[in-house]
Amino acid sequence: KKIVCLPGDGIGQEIMNSALQVMTVIADKYQLDLVTEEHDFGGAAIDNHGHPLPEATLAACQAADGILLGAIGGPQWEEAEVRPEQGLLALRKALNLYANIRPVTVPTATAHLSPLKPEIVTGADFVVVRELTGGIYFGEPRELNQEDALDTCTYTAAEIRRILRKGFEIAQGRRKLVTSVDKANVLATSKLWRKIAEEVASEFPDVTLEHHLVDSVAMKLIQEPTHFDVIITENLFGDILSDEASVIPGTLGILPSASHGVGGLSLYEPIHGSAPDIAGQNIANPVSMILSMAMMLRESFGWEAPASEVEETCYAVMAEGVLTGDLGGTTSTSEFVEAVIKKIQ
Amino acid sequence: KKIVCLPGDGIGQEIMNSALQVMTVIADKYQLDLVTEEHDFGGAAIDNHGHPLPEATLAACQAADGILLGAIGGPQWEEAEVRPEQGLLALRKALNLYANIRPVTVPTATAHLSPLKPEIVTGADFVVVRELTGGIYFGEPRELNQEDALDTCTYTAAEIRRILRKGFEIAQGRRKLVTSVDKANVLATSKLWRKIAEEVASEFPDVTLEHHLVDSVAMKLIQEPTHFDVIITENLFGDILSDEASVIPGTLGILPSASHGVGGLSLYEPIHGSAPDIAGQNIANPVSMILSMAMMLRESFGWEAPASEVEETCYAVMAEGVLTGDLGGTTSTSEFVEAVIKKIQ
Ligand SMILES: CC(C)[C@H](C(=O)O)[C@@H](O)C(=O)O
Ligand SMILES: CC(C)[C@H](C(=O)O)[C@@H](O)C(=O)O
Repeated sequence: KKIVCLPGDGIGQEIMNSALQVMTVIADKYQLDLVTEEHDFGGAAIDNHGHPLPEATLAACQAADGILLGAIGGPQWEEAEVRPEQGLLALRKALNLYANIRPVTVPTATAHLSPLKPEIVTGADFVVVRELTGGIYFGEPRELNQEDALDTCTYTAAEIRRILRKGFEIAQGRRKLVTSVDKANVLATSKLWRKIAEEVASEFPDVTLEHHLVDSVAMKLIQEPTHFDVIITENLFGDILSDEASVIPGTLGILPSASHGVGGLSLYEPIHGSAPDIAGQNIANPVSMILSMAMMLRESFGWEAPASEVEETCYAVMAEGVLTGDLGGTTSTSEFVEAVIKKIQ
Repeated sequence: KKIVCLPGDGIGQEIMNSALQVMTVIADKYQLDLVTEEHDFGGAAIDNHGHPLPEATLAACQAADGILLGAIGGPQWEEAEVRPEQGLLALRKALNLYANIRPVTVPTATAHLSPLKPEIVTGADFVVVRELTGGIYFGEPRELNQEDALDTCTYTAAEIRRILRKGFEIAQGRRKLVTSVDKANVLATSKLWRKIAEEVASEFPDVTLEHHLVDSVAMKLIQEPTHFDVIITENLFGDILSDEASVIPGTLGILPSASHGVGGLSLYEPIHGSAPDIAGQNIANPVSMILSMAMMLRESFGWEAPASEVEETCYAVMAEGVLTGDLGGTTSTSEFVEAVIKKIQ
């Protein structure tokens, strides 16, 4: 299996190295045949090639079996003409990565760090399924003038159907509750979304569908996170709600994500950013990158046992109090990785 | 002063009556000259007139000095052709109610009910300023077809400037920190928003401006609500973020809101909905409606002393443990109102 690694900017390189070290060990143990290849992406690519998504990087991704992404962005590119995020949006579009999957769980080791009360967060375990290549992120026309501006939100029935189907399939392997999120009391795209959600629900008679307005979910996520199983929503709502949901476990440092394309190619990345303020200090939490790698082993290659072992080992190491700074500990990035590797061998 | 009351649906009538009883008593005490006039609006108006915003209601609002709104909507109109919300959107547009102001504070009596930890919520005190007549709520074209749908988000520089100015003015009377919220890394309307925020900031040298992306604010509101003073944002982001923020005090039942128009006419309403499940049972919390009335006394009529007395009395009564069901108490709507009135007399 050929894996393209895009470390990106800030802490991207350190956490990518961490995940690859763990991957090498688990590959040895389970005799997995994996080769990796690193490419410039994001701010680093702007500096080296003038573009956040160089052609060579895109070509390598298209030829890969799986993609690991670290994180992109930083203050030095904030005011720039071309920005790192544009590379990410272009990559999502070019690879047709339409389904962004973000599982949110609250491991015992971090529950006390949540801004929410223990009785509210305990047992929360849900997945946010975000449409990633449509909506107002990509709709045309888009206009920016001196005196006015315009963005367009568009969806086709087919785009809505495929993301809903993806979410329903995920729900079938879980508690079988789908929360479809829209703003159908105002938006035309949401009215179409709601109609198609009903249609797709009839294909999955074992799954329960509930409709919720986006403003109401923004409340309920905090009031009662344990209610949710699979939340499915469009691009912009998913951006906001998945970030909101990510505060529930008390740290962004442990949450992985997957973005699935149409042809079976997927990209895996931590949900957190490039944290330029702590880059290069060997203190970043590598867990979300390692768990993203584990997600790839399972979801792209079907290797359930090694994926589970990586995940369980990460949680076990954290439960022993081996914690990076964001979790209130003093363990360094490399020490954490060593602890994980030692347990796996 | 002529006040138009729109009780609306569900608990709307009970909480409106509560607020008007308190208003009568405070008006007596301070010799305020107030007349009220009630009109159909929302679901009730659909039933009686076939339209959620009948012409007579709109005309009365246009001739008023202030408007009080209870709440609208209910399951019986959910599948209907014309829905109660359309009346609200039409009213906002017709009266040009461009500035929706939602103060969020955490009174001692409710702090323990918050889903957030006490150390996170204690001292949180901010205002969400939401643009209410532009953006994707009203942009044209809007299209709903069998196979696709489209919504348009538009803003003019003038629309953005007036809401930002309103927010900066509010900040001047507070801690002087403005958080301007956009998605400028993706949207053209947000790029224009950010540019104008910079321009408006230069008119208010005593106020500090920070820019935040909407996804990042969705996190920070929960992680560190005490950070914020005045949050200013566009219509859709404001809808989501203000609802998210409203969970911080632990109940929606105590939060008022104001929507200011261009000609000095304003509408005041609770942020919660019509709660059809508890309507007619005399158990609804009337505090947000009473506080909305107090906001009207202050902001529309400049009557600071009576407004403060109403507010302080509500908080004092709650602090004595006189609490409705949503706050964990057993006080009825009318008992709460009696307790407030007794203290004012
Ligand atoms: C960087 C930005 C364009 C991106 C998005 O909004 O999709 C990010 O916030 C994310 O959620 O991956
Ligand atoms: C009822 C609905 C159209 C409305 C909105 O989205 O503006 C409501 O959610 C609100 O926040 O006042």
